[in-house]
Amino acid sequence: MTDSVKYLLSEKDLPKAWYNIAADLPKPPPPVLHPGTGKPVGPDDLAPLFPMELIQQEVSTQREIEIPEPVREVYRQWRPSPLFRARRLEKALDTPARIYYKYEGVSPTGSHKPNTSVPQAWYNKTAGIKRLTTETGAGQWGSSLAFAGALFGIEVVVFMVRVSFDQKPYRKAMIEGFGATVHASPSDQTNAGRAALAKRADHPGSLGLAISEAVEVAAMSPKENKANYSLGSVLNHVLLHQSIVGLETLKQLEMAGDDPDVVIGCVGGGSNFAGIVFPLLGLQLRGGRKRRFLAVEPTACPSITKGRFAYDFGDTANLTPLIKMYTLGSAFVPPPVHAGGLRYHGMAPLVSHCVDLGLIEGVAKHQIECFQAGIQFAKTEGIFPAPEANHAVRAAIDEALKAKAEGKKRVILFNLSGHGHFDMQSYLDFAAGKLKDMEYDPKELAMALAGLPSVKE
Amino acid sequence: MTDSVKYLLSEKDLPKAWYNIAADLPKPPPPVLHPGTGKPVGPDDLAPLFPMELIQQEVSTQREIEIPEPVREVYRQWRPSPLFRARRLEKALDTPARIYYKYEGVSPTGSHKPNTSVPQAWYNKTAGIKRLTTETGAGQWGSSLAFAGALFGIEVVVFMVRVSFDQKPYRKAMIEGFGATVHASPSDQTNAGRAALAKRADHPGSLGLAISEAVEVAAMSPKENKANYSLGSVLNHVLLHQSIVGLETLKQLEMAGDDPDVVIGCVGGGSNFAGIVFPLLGLQLRGGRKRRFLAVEPTACPSITKGRFAYDFGDTANLTPLIKMYTLGSAFVPPPVHAGGLRYHGMAPLVSHCVDLGLIEGVAKHQIECFQAGIQFAKTEGIFPAPEANHAVRAAIDEALKAKAEGKKRVILFNLSGHGHFDMQSYLDFAAGKLKDMEYDPKELAMALAGLPSVKE
Repeated sequence: MTDSVKYLLSEKDLPKAWYNIAADLPKPPPPVLHPGTGKPVGPDDLAPLFPMELIQQEVSTQREIEIPEPVREVYRQWRPSPLFRARRLEKALDTPARIYYKYEGVSPTGSHKPNTSVPQAWYNKTAGIKRLTTETGAGQWGSSLAFAGALFGIEVVVFMVRVSFDQKPYRKAMIEGFGATVHASPSDQTNAGRAALAKRADHPGSLGLAISEAVEVAAMSPKENKANYSLGSVLNHVLLHQSIVGLETLKQLEMAGDDPDVVIGCVGGGSNFAGIVFPLLGLQLRGGRKRRFLAVEPTACPSITKGRFAYDFGDTANLTPLIKMYTLGSAFVPPPVHAGGLRYHGMAPLVSHCVDLGLIEGVAKHQIECFQAGIQFAKTEGIFPAPEANHAVRAAIDEALKAKAEGKKRVILFNLSGHGHFDMQSYLDFAAGKLKDMEYDPKELAMALAGLPSVKE
Repeated sequence: MTDSVKYLLSEKDLPKAWYNIAADLPKPPPPVLHPGTGKPVGPDDLAPLFPMELIQQEVSTQREIEIPEPVREVYRQWRPSPLFRARRLEKALDTPARIYYKYEGVSPTGSHKPNTSVPQAWYNKTAGIKRLTTETGAGQWGSSLAFAGALFGIEVVVFMVRVSFDQKPYRKAMIEGFGATVHASPSDQTNAGRAALAKRADHPGSLGLAISEAVEVAAMSPKENKANYSLGSVLNHVLLHQSIVGLETLKQLEMAGDDPDVVIGCVGGGSNFAGIVFPLLGLQLRGGRKRRFLAVEPTACPSITKGRFAYDFGDTANLTPLIKMYTLGSAFVPPPVHAGGLRYHGMAPLVSHCVDLGLIEGVAKHQIECFQAGIQFAKTEGIFPAPEANHAVRAAIDEALKAKAEGKKRVILFNLSGHGHFDMQSYLDFAAGKLKDMEYDPKELAMALAGLPSVKE
């Protein structure tokens, strides 16, 4: 163990391949099903939305998948990202625990999202695609795909959940600054959007609905101006790209001469969590040390802790294939907590599968306790985390306090998935005592779960 | 010359001493004068405001001044900061020039300011000071001193120029998040503030006025709750602390195997510019290669290009000693351009002295052309610069285009002093065509210059 503050890798230590956990799972995850036929979907079903390289990654069981050199070149701008030892936080907590955090806020858009937006844009470009559609909640993903689009000369169209569109004009400014187009969702651009607006003119939108809009535009795009669809989380190929986070972390832990007992990440769709966790979980699956892996979700949108492991649609308009995942039901609309990136009804199928196998634990945290953790982190470590990342910070602090109570030298690692520079309104609201611990409506959840599609397994 | 994207130093390459250009100047800068006696000020005159270590640094002619280890420990969180080769920008400009930028936006508060806030807070802490007052324009400095105060347990009181206080609630949120107190300036807390409000109830404030308020509070503070004053630019000890930027850059240029022909920084008070320039200028003064050093200011506040090299007060209420500098007159109120950090009537005396000696050139840029440069930078390099830093980007792009026109392989280096995450409103205004190229009123400038104090030299 060394006494450094941060652990930096040189560019030559940037991983050359992503890690695919599908190679090491004790049993394969349930197949994705076609909603019409109930049969597993094949590459042809996905071809209207994704380039073949990404479809192949989606179903690959190869352990290592090479990162294309043009993607590595872009990665090198901010990767390998730093691993920090949170010494000042440890001191403030007076804990015997050692706390490490991998900091993904150093990317151009301030989160882990470019780890996948860049390869997605690259594979689409090499497939001759000139236009990409996507959804965004808080705007982290939309700005990251806009960034990647600007680099590779791809037009990007973003459907942004209306509540965020209105509350976060500066994320929108960033997306537009990169040259992309932003529509508030629900919009009048799609059948799904128009239907939602017809039901409710002031519809606040949701991630599931914005996905429906983006998928629809891509699916209906004419051959001569073909658009593909791009998703910022949930899918296997997205989690694959995020594995770079954990692969780097493994090398950095070696530099630090330390070994985490518990690994923590916040979960919305599950990609930043899987990014830091899967490479370490893979070691365990191949016979290595057993560790705790803790997925932290908001109590307002608790797919792992209160949802059902079942087949469901990925979007609200039910345009996507059926995926087996922890879900609150595609009709569930989570309360408007500030952690917009965690307001998704489902959970990545690979993360869900690992929860089902007992490899990953879920825990839910309230909004206010998460902001309290964020402020404590800012005052000690200097960084204001994004509201999403505050969930990981909260859980890490709780683990450190537990270690203190137990007098244990626990080693805690968490992914600080992004900074909160575009979320300072939420910190203002918190400071002004305006934040509430929002609860979902149990009746609404029961109804959404009752509406899950019936699938013969 | 290597083909990397970024040049990173390890923590062990973090400089152990700051560089003091006073050791190498061909003639010493004019002395700072007491406004009452007209005599050079001594340490006792400054003792009510600053700890003795900083006063000694202010007048030192020692070339190297050791960085205290507790300061280096904090620096190590984000330093050495990266030096980037702007390859994608070069390609977009189709220029034979090679463009490098040192990126100071990686600090916790997103600019170069913590390079001096941390040592200032540290020296004050070791002197037993528990309270610091300061001013801030756009908020970069206020948040940086608040950060340093949080680390060392010092109470920080910030007077924030009212126009920024109202326009930039998120910088204020950051300052308060770190635990500091913020007053809109002019405030009712001081004689200087009350006098300004009496003249004009909706006074927009200015950096010079906010300095008056912060100095007054410190100077009048009771012995039992002594407050010191802290300044984020202009003074010699501030420029000294910023030399870490250029010292690191020298090592990184060696890694890159390249040597800049022109070195560029934006100038408000002059500290980020001096930070990157002085270590390179020092080499030249000790017999090394001659380079161009380009200080870029806004046309709205053109102290070098339209001001006078004369003795003047550093603040509006004329509470400070007299310093010889390029100045527009302490009564000059610059138009409200978005680059709030550059809206200062004067210029660091050491930078001014070097301009007077013909070692540094000044150039002024308009607001709109600077934002155009910022957007071009964002679309290629992925980073939205702060409006202040856009002035350096503009000048760097202009130099690269000149190199292209002349068919020359010029090497350009600039300091990207901070990111624009808290300035996205200005990018929105720019995109909406709402920005104007604001000109100062020549009559007002003439009056402000006519009001300069008469000093016998």
